[in-house]
Amino acid sequence: MAKKIHNIQGVKLGSASSNTRYGKRDDSVVISLPKESKLSGKFTSNKLKAAPVSEAIQNLSSLKSGEKILLVNAGNANAANGPKGIKDVKNYCKKIASDLDIHQNNIIPFSTGVIGEALPVDNYLKAFRYALTNLKERGWKKAASAILTTDTKPKIISKEIKIGKTSYLITGFAKGSGMIRPDFATLLSFVFLDARLNQSVLNKIHTEALKVSFEAITVDGDTSPNDSSLLVANGNIEKVVKAGSLAEKKLSQAIIETFKELSKLLVQDAEGATKTIKVNVTKAKNIQQARSVAFTVAESPLVKTAMFGSDANWGRILSAIGRDKTVEDINKLEIRLNRQPLVKKGFIHPKYSEKLASRAMQKKEIEIEIILGLGKQGFEVMTSDLSEDYVLINSDYRS
Amino acid sequence: MAKKIHNIQGVKLGSASSNTRYGKRDDSVVISLPKESKLSGKFTSNKLKAAPVSEAIQNLSSLKSGEKILLVNAGNANAANGPKGIKDVKNYCKKIASDLDIHQNNIIPFSTGVIGEALPVDNYLKAFRYALTNLKERGWKKAASAILTTDTKPKIISKEIKIGKTSYLITGFAKGSGMIRPDFATLLSFVFLDARLNQSVLNKIHTEALKVSFEAITVDGDTSPNDSSLLVANGNIEKVVKAGSLAEKKLSQAIIETFKELSKLLVQDAEGATKTIKVNVTKAKNIQQARSVAFTVAESPLVKTAMFGSDANWGRILSAIGRDKTVEDINKLEIRLNRQPLVKKGFIHPKYSEKLASRAMQKKEIEIEIILGLGKQGFEVMTSDLSEDYVLINSDYRS
Repeated sequence: MAKKIHNIQGVKLGSASSNTRYGKRDDSVVISLPKESKLSGKFTSNKLKAAPVSEAIQNLSSLKSGEKILLVNAGNANAANGPKGIKDVKNYCKKIASDLDIHQNNIIPFSTGVIGEALPVDNYLKAFRYALTNLKERGWKKAASAILTTDTKPKIISKEIKIGKTSYLITGFAKGSGMIRPDFATLLSFVFLDARLNQSVLNKIHTEALKVSFEAITVDGDTSPNDSSLLVANGNIEKVVKAGSLAEKKLSQAIIETFKELSKLLVQDAEGATKTIKVNVTKAKNIQQARSVAFTVAESPLVKTAMFGSDANWGRILSAIGRDKTVEDINKLEIRLNRQPLVKKGFIHPKYSEKLASRAMQKKEIEIEIILGLGKQGFEVMTSDLSEDYVLINSDYRS
Repeated sequence: MAKKIHNIQGVKLGSASSNTRYGKRDDSVVISLPKESKLSGKFTSNKLKAAPVSEAIQNLSSLKSGEKILLVNAGNANAANGPKGIKDVKNYCKKIASDLDIHQNNIIPFSTGVIGEALPVDNYLKAFRYALTNLKERGWKKAASAILTTDTKPKIISKEIKIGKTSYLITGFAKGSGMIRPDFATLLSFVFLDARLNQSVLNKIHTEALKVSFEAITVDGDTSPNDSSLLVANGNIEKVVKAGSLAEKKLSQAIIETFKELSKLLVQDAEGATKTIKVNVTKAKNIQQARSVAFTVAESPLVKTAMFGSDANWGRILSAIGRDKTVEDINKLEIRLNRQPLVKKGFIHPKYSEKLASRAMQKKEIEIEIILGLGKQGFEVMTSDLSEDYVLINSDYRS
């Protein structure tokens, strides 16, 4: 949790309970955005898209002037519900738009929860209406808690960046992980800027930030129909960021950091995780190769179970690299684990020490460095280990 | 285990113990092949190739006339041992060749076991020499047991195919799974024919058989540096199979069946497996798409844990299909599980019954049918569920 949470001028958050899956716990969030705000939304690449995702994509592409409203519900994904799912989401969006007298395109819905169960529309609508009565600029903690499903804790990051005499603020929160569990977990991330940026700069920063954050983490390789990331600039006229300026560069870096920190919080809280594992691939022929090798190793069940068992099993890491389709030559590669040498030129490192490697494995944070020796590009992926608890959690029956 | 094991004329097997990793248990096998025999070898696609694999590939491409000898050792993979690994394998092959006074190219080595540990050459050489003293045509059971590592039982398939008045015989045995565990398990398969085929027909049948057997099973997506499959025709002059004949067609079918049955035995004995799962994709645009979808579903940890938990979780199956890169449209697809309807046109089937679906899940053999509705091609993959035992077995420290 962030030490100090900065409010973002004009961004107001309210929460309430739908009294459905989670009983009296808040599970519905409304966020109101000032009329000057700019929104950049990025969504799941899964062809199975939840109804709110389809609606959000459509509305974001045809926003009208005026206030915008985000609606988030946890507990029901409203995914794979066919035409009824679409009808349901349009239904509650329309009613909220009518209540507030704003254009329906300005209502952006998000959801997370169980796939394939009909949405209890009336319950969530009632909750959204109640949440609208308690909108507050300081509503962050409640909102970050209300969107959770299988997560064990809320994830908030907040930063202040001074550039010259201007203080820019960033506050964001997220839940789940895009690659944990389509049933209950979904990546939802909302990051807000106290700054004025134009749309194309906002989109560019968002794309860059995703590449090295939510698109560079994996728990089990599975994705969700509900994954959504929203980056909002509130349009504060006193905090203008010009395209190509030093301010843009610095703010951009801070936003990327915020996304990375949120990603790390997600991996640390992944189902059954006992360790956080960075797979850092360097000296690849190109970024595609670096990315491919990093994901192949990060998603190998044999590597992940070895990490859980605190076994510096370099043979499994080497085998995973060896089966990656982009790798033609493993004779130049080196592998290190928390700085301990494991492999050199494709076989056991002459300085390998079982004792020191085992000691390095005891840490909660593991870095596997893979130096391919084939070029100059790199990519880093963060993942968790594969524990018995992951199997226990995920083999539990849905109901 | 096959009911009756047919001997293959001229093929003799001997086993012995190296007295290393497995104590007094036999772990070394010698197989002698008659001079008329033809050999077809296929090996791991992993760029990390064990030293015996490199040696076997080289020798098979330059066989000399005369007797051939297969040497198989279990317990030590002799993989990722660098130049020393190659020196070691050449060393014992040379000595056996010299003992028998045959050309060194005619000695084909195979191995399975721990990666990255130096091979105790003298121990295995002694075992091979001892095994040579007890070569027998009926040595199948002992050989099939001696090559095991983490497998819990030997796998042998034997068949007799009568074509006209001629009786063709097939006997094969295998261990591990090419995609279970590079540490201790490796796919090794040896299938022998009492028949005379030319080299190109033998290679063609071998390639076809692999596509629908060992290349269509997966446990965790990981591959081994040691995977090897050998198909041998003994060259029996009384059992000639002409290219393009009916005999070739029938024998070919029986060989493919043998490979498929061996594959099924491997999946049934996969680490921690409690269920065997067939993922049968039909009506795909092309075979690549069918294959891709089948593997994506068969390797999804969320699908596999749901199967372990006996949960007919169609949302996870649908999500896995939705993230497959080859699938553009999920709105025509149907999913059935042991004939129970789960999904139609991309969302819940109108005839879905939680009770019947749960009952279907209680079986030990699960078939997931995925009808994509995009074309006419199909592919079937066999896999196992993902249990706590898989994690326990694989998180155990190596030593």
